[in-house]
Amino acid sequence: MASEYIEPLERLADMFRRLDGVGKKTALRYAFSVLNFTEDEAREFADALVACKTEVVLCGECQNISTDEVCPICSSPNRDGSTVCVVEDPRAVYAIEKTRQFGGVYHVLHGTLSPMRGITPDRLKIKELLQRISKSMDEGQTEIKELILATNPTVEGEATAMYIAKLLTPLGVKVTRIANGVPVGGDLEYADEVTLRRAMEGRYTIG
Amino acid sequence: MASEYIEPLERLADMFRRLDGVGKKTALRYAFSVLNFTEDEAREFADALVACKTEVVLCGECQNISTDEVCPICSSPNRDGSTVCVVEDPRAVYAIEKTRQFGGVYHVLHGTLSPMRGITPDRLKIKELLQRISKSMDEGQTEIKELILATNPTVEGEATAMYIAKLLTPLGVKVTRIANGVPVGGDLEYADEVTLRRAMEGRYTIG
Repeated sequence: MASEYIEPLERLADMFRRLDGVGKKTALRYAFSVLNFTEDEAREFADALVACKTEVVLCGECQNISTDEVCPICSSPNRDGSTVCVVEDPRAVYAIEKTRQFGGVYHVLHGTLSPMRGITPDRLKIKELLQRISKSMDEGQTEIKELILATNPTVEGEATAMYIAKLLTPLGVKVTRIANGVPVGGDLEYADEVTLRRAMEGRYTIG
Repeated sequence: MASEYIEPLERLADMFRRLDGVGKKTALRYAFSVLNFTEDEAREFADALVACKTEVVLCGECQNISTDEVCPICSSPNRDGSTVCVVEDPRAVYAIEKTRQFGGVYHVLHGTLSPMRGITPDRLKIKELLQRISKSMDEGQTEIKELILATNPTVEGEATAMYIAKLLTPLGVKVTRIANGVPVGGDLEYADEVTLRRAMEGRYTIG
């Protein structure tokens, strides 16, 4: 007998390995966990996996993940469409929402510039941001007056913020950057709410 | 907007949390990973999950996980059915198979005794082991001559081994326990005192 596990188990472990940060041993542990599920639980899990792909789209406005064409934040009449907070990923949106301090809207870039990893501006939702600003200048639209660059305080996040600031300042939009209240080198997802609130309050003009 | 993620994402994260050792943050990270899958990949993952439940059964002989009613080890004519190695879980079977040294067969208990966690003998495959031994004494069957207790060298593993030994010795079966000692390639400095004591006790003559 080979020193391999049975095929269905190996196959499932291979799938778990595709998840962010899962190695071979962990993937096998997860596959063994599934063996202890009931068949109904496994099917429920399977359905949730497929639903996560089939039911989730990107909001046509802010590019955040959404189950609607336009997300609840963008379609809310209570949100101030003139202030747009630009973030790296959906997790940052939820982190900021948790502070209950920000009344504007968002724009999700889905990444940061990283020439080393081949992430060039066209790979991010920067074109969509430009289109959004340009559209906001049309008559009858809520004009975007301020862009808060809330990318992570990492090398890539700062570089991305600088890139966008240089791109947008000539358009006459006020571009601000969240303050270094967020610990440098950290990730918005893991910042506590008070720190995030301070960071929002302490934003400054760049570019 | 609530400080919750969109429903399909939360639902999938809840599923990941059911896996052994996965907390809330990790479950969410995994759910976000799935967002980066293609729909085909998600379906492949979903199919593998269900297959792991529908295609995997327990071998009628050794209780190891199998895709056949009787696993390849138990049905192999090259394995010695008179020596049965008793292990806690399928992972131990594969660990021992990797050594390519053991030519006998296995019996998988699927756990260890743990009164604290409510794991009593009837929750393990001990009844099946007794039936197997009793059946092996019938005419025309390969008689089980030795049972090697290879449960883990933990408190629960030792207690389980002791329990089975007491249960089986009266039946006239030779019951052995795998040796304790310093791991090959290890360093005495890092071996704990109990392990070292056992290694000293189990010393053998060389040369």
